[in-house]
Amino acid sequence: MLINPKNIAPPPYADGMWHWRRHFISVAQIRDRRDLDEDLFPLAHHLEHMVHNEGASQLLVGKCLYDLFYEPSTRTMSSFAIAMKRMGGMVESISNVQFSSVAKGESLEDTIRTLACYSDVIVLRQKEEGVAKKAAEASPVPVINAGDGKGEHPTQAVLDLFTIYRELKRIDGLTVTMVGDLKHGRTVHSLSRLLCLYDGIQLNLVSPPELRMPDKLVSELRGHGLEPRIHDRLEEVVPESDALYVTRVQLERIPQDQRPATIPYIVTPATMAMAKPRGEMILMHPLPRDSQDGNPEISVEVDADPRAAYFRQCEYGMYARMAILSRMLRAD
Amino acid sequence: MLINPKNIAPPPYADGMWHWRRHFISVAQIRDRRDLDEDLFPLAHHLEHMVHNEGASQLLVGKCLYDLFYEPSTRTMSSFAIAMKRMGGMVESISNVQFSSVAKGESLEDTIRTLACYSDVIVLRQKEEGVAKKAAEASPVPVINAGDGKGEHPTQAVLDLFTIYRELKRIDGLTVTMVGDLKHGRTVHSLSRLLCLYDGIQLNLVSPPELRMPDKLVSELRGHGLEPRIHDRLEEVVPESDALYVTRVQLERIPQDQRPATIPYIVTPATMAMAKPRGEMILMHPLPRDSQDGNPEISVEVDADPRAAYFRQCEYGMYARMAILSRMLRAD
Amino acid sequence: MLINPKNIAPPPYADGMWHWRRHFISVAQIRDRRDLDEDLFPLAHHLEHMVHNEGASQLLVGKCLYDLFYEPSTRTMSSFAIAMKRMGGMVESISNVQFSSVAKGESLEDTIRTLACYSDVIVLRQKEEGVAKKAAEASPVPVINAGDGKGEHPTQAVLDLFTIYRELKRIDGLTVTMVGDLKHGRTVHSLSRLLCLYDGIQLNLVSPPELRMPDKLVSELRGHGLEPRIHDRLEEVVPESDALYVTRVQLERIPQDQRPATIPYIVTPATMAMAKPRGEMILMHPLPRDSQDGNPEISVEVDADPRAAYFRQCEYGMYARMAILSRMLRAD
Repeated sequence: MLINPKNIAPPPYADGMWHWRRHFISVAQIRDRRDLDEDLFPLAHHLEHMVHNEGASQLLVGKCLYDLFYEPSTRTMSSFAIAMKRMGGMVESISNVQFSSVAKGESLEDTIRTLACYSDVIVLRQKEEGVAKKAAEASPVPVINAGDGKGEHPTQAVLDLFTIYRELKRIDGLTVTMVGDLKHGRTVHSLSRLLCLYDGIQLNLVSPPELRMPDKLVSELRGHGLEPRIHDRLEEVVPESDALYVTRVQLERIPQDQRPATIPYIVTPATMAMAKPRGEMILMHPLPRDSQDGNPEISVEVDADPRAAYFRQCEYGMYARMAILSRMLRAD
Repeated sequence: MLINPKNIAPPPYADGMWHWRRHFISVAQIRDRRDLDEDLFPLAHHLEHMVHNEGASQLLVGKCLYDLFYEPSTRTMSSFAIAMKRMGGMVESISNVQFSSVAKGESLEDTIRTLACYSDVIVLRQKEEGVAKKAAEASPVPVINAGDGKGEHPTQAVLDLFTIYRELKRIDGLTVTMVGDLKHGRTVHSLSRLLCLYDGIQLNLVSPPELRMPDKLVSELRGHGLEPRIHDRLEEVVPESDALYVTRVQLERIPQDQRPATIPYIVTPATMAMAKPRGEMILMHPLPRDSQDGNPEISVEVDADPRAAYFRQCEYGMYARMAILSRMLRAD
Repeated sequence: MLINPKNIAPPPYADGMWHWRRHFISVAQIRDRRDLDEDLFPLAHHLEHMVHNEGASQLLVGKCLYDLFYEPSTRTMSSFAIAMKRMGGMVESISNVQFSSVAKGESLEDTIRTLACYSDVIVLRQKEEGVAKKAAEASPVPVINAGDGKGEHPTQAVLDLFTIYRELKRIDGLTVTMVGDLKHGRTVHSLSRLLCLYDGIQLNLVSPPELRMPDKLVSELRGHGLEPRIHDRLEEVVPESDALYVTRVQLERIPQDQRPATIPYIVTPATMAMAKPRGEMILMHPLPRDSQDGNPEISVEVDADPRAAYFRQCEYGMYARMAILSRMLRAD
């Protein structure tokens, strides 16, 4: 609460950046892989068992989460909301901010400080990069960045990595292949940064030339010891991949004259026939996949394949967010 | 939950149709009147007492309902949501799907499978007939059809019948009169089908010629032993009616050139003066009644009549939905 | 609940007006200052401690609040919703009524009676003055007016007065200065009426001539023993003020040709330098303040001043509403 904020988070890092348990704005705030391997992931797995057995616990009774979404995103908002409720917490949401008085000439800082009067954590989705940081600076309660435009969406990266850990039992030494729009795809940017914390990762990047991962990010990854390999063709890397991470080509973000004529990569049962067997390989996707023209980037025939992990990934997302909320709102 | 769905529902019927406790899509799934008389109705009545005495119970603690409404319907959505909450359950809702990412090129099946990752039952309202069945086929968790266009809205039929049972103490042998737009009125179609499970029902149908109950449905009812009598004038059947069920003439669904000049039937205190006394007769309406031009199909002067059961019917709807949810989500 | 409403409120006042615990429509229903000093305020303060220590209680378990907002107001709606949830109650909300079936030709009375089937208290925001009273007349459950156009917003006045009581430990004998748009500002109208219950209040009114408090209200206050002093310049009353209540000049409510060229009063650190010291003086604002053109009526440099009480006021609002809800929904 505002008046007597009980700041249970560890102190800032040496360079002054908040600990991720204070405000979770960027994956760059996770600096110790043990925060993942030895803390969040085992806790998320434990919470998964709890949900299957009991449905809900009392871990966050008395805590209130505010879902403040300036841009609608049903699945992210619901995932946070239900994560909170399954730990006994309360949730209040506003998703169409343009219809609301919070937009009536009020500054973001004032909106945040007002909502912090009622709640214990604010989950913010905004269109503009950098806004989540600005909100956190104004907020007496923890802020979680649930996506700021082309910027970050750090809990998505944590849940993606948790999916790999949960399904393949390890992360070190894996070959991870990212496919699709690697230029605009926020999720692959954040996940590749998190992978730098691990040893012996082989990262393959498969995209059409106009949708390559930005050079700046590739350099950053190299600086952290990852050596991404760039590929044009999916087939050449499928056989070696432990995790194949497919993203939607967000055509709406590509200038008309640069748009590829067709979706460049489609994962079909034929693709999966080249892949490693069940238990050694998973197929991931952040969802939603685009079914508008009947040709989603992963064909629906693949859904029945036990290696198709994307709906499980979605469910793991709830457990990962439960673990994150628990660590941000409880002192233990 | 998705990964380990505990399917507590009975096996499908002999012809392969789901038991209504697995997915509740159509009243045709209720094949044994004892599911109503001896199960849902006594349970709904019991829950009514619980709500009056305690307000809420813990029957569905740990269970989460997702209200997925592609077409807004505040009263239906709230009725399900509060039913769930009054049994200790959690609720997440999305009502204006057009503003939401669930509409961003994603197939219905993917949306359903995604929301099923977080929740234990999905309540779906959709504009197109048949969509609820399609959703159920994709869903690992139970789906409840809360109206699919001109199709069905089975929980409304259950609550309508519960209202008759609760107010008149029996259903066998009653005379039920349906009035208004019997061509488009989804509620009267479903209720008349449920009445086929009972003995000695006299069904009267009162409508202008252009708004008659469809021949196909009348034939279907006859095949099940009901012998509907068609009437033009309300007065001639009011005296014999035990339940008088009035529906709104949905002018917006009638082509301009076929619209009646005035609302053909209005129930007034003079109408009620012809009816059976209190305790033997009830006046029902699925609500909302149309007050736009100041002449609703039941005049407000009737509201104080103790036989006017439509607001009680609305409240019974919450208890009926509590009972249905309990039977779909609990093994006992 | 509808069928067996347990009306726990005291009987109407001698003139037939509802006791505020039955329906809370106007501050005129608070006739005994002890309802504030000796009841609501100590209870609100107690609930503040509860929230800081526990986060939530079980006071209103089994009770359901319905937030019915015909005009969006995120902060008011959230404040009521979270107040209810922090006492263990349930909440259902509808904020964009234009998208909803509750607007489909249904009368307000029918909407209210329908929602009362599911809930135990209805919080109503409406654009037209007098609508809240009309709703209360139709409602079997308590109705709280959360703003009806230019009319009243009585819980705002209670929270404003609670803020003064909570921060300055007394109300009798204080000098209260209201600044800004005193013609249209609903909050200052209601607060000034509540101040009439107290002894020795000096009320200063500072506004441009075209935005003066209405003569009729000034006469009413005089009839109750208050002697408001009218001022043009803020500086001349700041030094004597115990509470300085600043309102937004709601330019959108002022005819174009009467609008002042600039915001007439801006509170800056220079203003605060003239004011009484910490512990003896507070600066209040109902929020939101208008930051659209970068010149809010209280400059952001003032936020760090310990006398700046407006965000605390917002938080106190939640406790005041918790106290009000508790008194309206519990017999004790």
